[in-house]
Amino acid sequence: MTAIARNVLLRYQQSFSVQSGCFLQAHVLSLCTPGSLYWRHRPLPIIICQKFASLSYGTSPLNVFTLTIKRVKSYRTHIMIRSLSSSRALQGEVPLTSDQYPSIKRGRFSQVCPDDVAFFESVLPGRVVTGSDDLEAANTDWLRMCRGQSKVLLRPQATDEVSTILKYCNEHNLAVVPQGGNTGLVGGSVPVFDEIIISTSLMNQVIEFNSLSGILTCQAGCILENLELFVQEEGFTMPLDLGAKGSCHIGGNVATSAGGIRFLRYGSLHGNTLGVEAVLADGEIFDGLSSLRKDNTGYDLKQLLIGSEGTLGIITAVCILCPPKPRSVNLALLGCRSFQAVLDTYKFSKEKLGEILSAFELIDCESMKIQETYGGHVNPLQGETLPFYVVVETSGSNKDHDELKMSSFLEEVMGKGYVVDGTIASESFQFKNMWSLREGIAASLMKAGVVYKYDLSFSIEGFYELVDVMREKLKGDALHVCGYGHLGDGNLHLNIVGPTLSKEFLSLIEPFVFEWTSDRGGSVSAEHGIGFKKRDAIQFSKTEKQIGIMQQVKSIFDPKGILNPYKTIPSGS
Amino acid sequence: MTAIARNVLLRYQQSFSVQSGCFLQAHVLSLCTPGSLYWRHRPLPIIICQKFASLSYGTSPLNVFTLTIKRVKSYRTHIMIRSLSSSRALQGEVPLTSDQYPSIKRGRFSQVCPDDVAFFESVLPGRVVTGSDDLEAANTDWLRMCRGQSKVLLRPQATDEVSTILKYCNEHNLAVVPQGGNTGLVGGSVPVFDEIIISTSLMNQVIEFNSLSGILTCQAGCILENLELFVQEEGFTMPLDLGAKGSCHIGGNVATSAGGIRFLRYGSLHGNTLGVEAVLADGEIFDGLSSLRKDNTGYDLKQLLIGSEGTLGIITAVCILCPPKPRSVNLALLGCRSFQAVLDTYKFSKEKLGEILSAFELIDCESMKIQETYGGHVNPLQGETLPFYVVVETSGSNKDHDELKMSSFLEEVMGKGYVVDGTIASESFQFKNMWSLREGIAASLMKAGVVYKYDLSFSIEGFYELVDVMREKLKGDALHVCGYGHLGDGNLHLNIVGPTLSKEFLSLIEPFVFEWTSDRGGSVSAEHGIGFKKRDAIQFSKTEKQIGIMQQVKSIFDPKGILNPYKTIPSGS
Repeated sequence: MTAIARNVLLRYQQSFSVQSGCFLQAHVLSLCTPGSLYWRHRPLPIIICQKFASLSYGTSPLNVFTLTIKRVKSYRTHIMIRSLSSSRALQGEVPLTSDQYPSIKRGRFSQVCPDDVAFFESVLPGRVVTGSDDLEAANTDWLRMCRGQSKVLLRPQATDEVSTILKYCNEHNLAVVPQGGNTGLVGGSVPVFDEIIISTSLMNQVIEFNSLSGILTCQAGCILENLELFVQEEGFTMPLDLGAKGSCHIGGNVATSAGGIRFLRYGSLHGNTLGVEAVLADGEIFDGLSSLRKDNTGYDLKQLLIGSEGTLGIITAVCILCPPKPRSVNLALLGCRSFQAVLDTYKFSKEKLGEILSAFELIDCESMKIQETYGGHVNPLQGETLPFYVVVETSGSNKDHDELKMSSFLEEVMGKGYVVDGTIASESFQFKNMWSLREGIAASLMKAGVVYKYDLSFSIEGFYELVDVMREKLKGDALHVCGYGHLGDGNLHLNIVGPTLSKEFLSLIEPFVFEWTSDRGGSVSAEHGIGFKKRDAIQFSKTEKQIGIMQQVKSIFDPKGILNPYKTIPSGS
Repeated sequence: MTAIARNVLLRYQQSFSVQSGCFLQAHVLSLCTPGSLYWRHRPLPIIICQKFASLSYGTSPLNVFTLTIKRVKSYRTHIMIRSLSSSRALQGEVPLTSDQYPSIKRGRFSQVCPDDVAFFESVLPGRVVTGSDDLEAANTDWLRMCRGQSKVLLRPQATDEVSTILKYCNEHNLAVVPQGGNTGLVGGSVPVFDEIIISTSLMNQVIEFNSLSGILTCQAGCILENLELFVQEEGFTMPLDLGAKGSCHIGGNVATSAGGIRFLRYGSLHGNTLGVEAVLADGEIFDGLSSLRKDNTGYDLKQLLIGSEGTLGIITAVCILCPPKPRSVNLALLGCRSFQAVLDTYKFSKEKLGEILSAFELIDCESMKIQETYGGHVNPLQGETLPFYVVVETSGSNKDHDELKMSSFLEEVMGKGYVVDGTIASESFQFKNMWSLREGIAASLMKAGVVYKYDLSFSIEGFYELVDVMREKLKGDALHVCGYGHLGDGNLHLNIVGPTLSKEFLSLIEPFVFEWTSDRGGSVSAEHGIGFKKRDAIQFSKTEKQIGIMQQVKSIFDPKGILNPYKTIPSGS
């Protein structure tokens, strides 16, 4: 592994030479504006153009590539691009899923043969990838914990092509895994064995945008951030925003019912997705690409596809309702002495900020320390160390009104003693810094040790209880027990950092965390989904009857089980 | 039929004597504050206490009942209570559904026998209704166009009771129809033949309310308006509001995925319903009463129950996310010279009113005339007659800010000439008058002749086109062709008034209206559902494949087809 570029000053674009055939992996470690600092720590595609995004995941066919930074005039960029001398290095890093889970047996699917590849090539000329280097990234998940052994990656551009492929696969009993931006956290978008990978990366066209209603119709492979930029030009915003926005595909967002920061304000994709087009296992097209706000004609079947993680059909296009773009955004970081004070602050924020409240996120003291130690952040509140910090955001249509509401809110919560310290972001870089303080926790944690991640939901009052329980339980064993997340949605990200990847250590956490959550009526997967890694945890949030119905639904949509096998439905099925 | 009370001055409550055994039907024709006037025309339960609501739908067991008006200090009330000397009169009015639709054959279900009734009586002592007078109202739909011949009405109070009943019915092959407030417009909540009616009217308890998150958990039979009053006390509001709020049950709202006026602001019940508990055909309880905002564990099966019209299960309890109660509401009635000007006004309202816009409703000139002629309304805009009127509402948290936004919006739309006349409601009675002008159209139309109702949705731009088309097509045949509805949601209520109920006249409208709508990608049922009356129209909005999947889903949930037969799924099934 070679670092080929570091601490480069980027002006619009910058070229690097790399050895031909190398596997490229690139991270922007931080972005600094001259004189003031903010941080980002995300895979490159987040801030670069889409064209590069696809290169960053495979072998570059050229020995020169270009970084293009959009909408940024001049930034001193700490950038590290690792050029792996061969993909072997990468192969060595992530053990095969089939080795990690020997109890899971490959389904009775056919194996891809040269005739199959020839057929795919006839449907998708030049868009069938069989080289092992190119496949490597698509076989490995974002967290680098799951790795499949697919021999074929298909890149259709149109729904008809997906239909032709699936009809063929169904007839020939070939299993497939649909893949969007491959940013999921539960191993849902990579093969477990040798499933054919069907990528939506070339299905990236906006089909229609209605600037009166704000209804966007687009192909499944559009990158969320590109859509955000597109609809912003029309005076709208996407109803969801996530840390992975620079890579994730809208089809994947819908397929996993993604949550994120704006959920509190705009609600779930079950509410905001107006239409879904999908190809079913037999190749038939589920033509539900309605752009109507209301349609009460029969069962709302598209809702089954939303959150089905590619196990019921491959989503090829979606209609999303976009709210008007806020013209005024305010952001504050506040410190509280107790969790009760956090709750009081939240209650007050709903009352005082009302319709403009757009995010209420919690960072606990331990997460703040992680950001200071591993994320390179400086806590913007430099007074005493406090047990809880909250990020409060407003989005509205009138700057004066919104600022007045925010200042009146802050005055009251500080006057009442709920908040003991606080700061408001006033410059653009401060906004980014404050958001990155919250959004960057996950990435910083990965530098602190081996992270055991849990994405749970509870009532808001019970949001933090488990963090204290686990801290007590793992005293002396865990390096860090962090609790942060979307407090306004009751969605806790519990992250436990251990010294190594160890079954013994894991047994201290699981199934206890799931049982504890289940006993309190919580969800064992609030927004990350079930995918591969949590399919045996689903029983803690769903009854046997419900799981049975899910299995029957699966058999309606995909009788042979070729769509994303070993995922979502428990292994008992 | 006897009018037993008219033009009564009501102070809090008033008692009337009625003949024992009479069937009561009551309408408040109007409410007047001294000196100023506003109108309502709705079935009584809308403004009276729940206790009376149940009386109003059956024979009163007493000969005295009491009207209680909530939250009203002193109103001169024009009230007419009709006491029907016997239910025979009513029977004569509505032809039996089975006679109206001779092609529909009764399914191979058992007939209720005395042993069945004895069993039901053992489960629901004193809550099994078999007297024909009591059954009459429950057999007849709100529009008085469908009438079944059920011999048994069951009134469970608890989920377990519903479970015991359904298990028995499934084993004994007895068909059932679930009934909430019986306010549906597509004949979905009344029997077609002799299905057993299972009413949720006694399942009317609030189970829990979380005043931090605004999450309400309640039984299915709670009346929407009662819930609104309940959550308002806690500083919240229900995310939906409909004309039928005084009678409709929340379980029925969820089962039909009801829309209404607040849809524009708070979105659909697919987004706002967090949890559903239902009893399936075999008596098993679908335990999905989650009060979590986020839960991504497997397929979101509750979404199938939302809008399934009682054909997949009987909803017994729900969790609803309630937004904070607005502290400031503004309402304006505006007049426009063209539909384009209406669209321009809408676009501007989104821009200027942003997050506080809560309704944008259209009333066309013909609907306004109906309200003047049959509804007793005076057009608040007394200048020239205009082709279009819109009702624009804002709901926000700050009176000063909201008024400023509204006045700035009005200044601009009038300055630009989009709006040529307008008035703002400033007093409480003006608010009610303005809303009743919009909400009362349906009731006023029923006095103008025989109403052929269509509930369609289109893109906003194409909202009004069909009204012009039908007006031209039915020139000389129709008495009135009215277009009004939820413009912001693209949801048109097309109401055609004919001189009589005539198949010939109907053939001028159908299937043309459905075909025209389908050709433009519209929905043939935007918010009213499919129920009984529209099940053969579903094909105009859903593909054969989708209908096929619906049939398979139905067979998973209800293999014997005992739940609300002849509804939702097309008759070909």
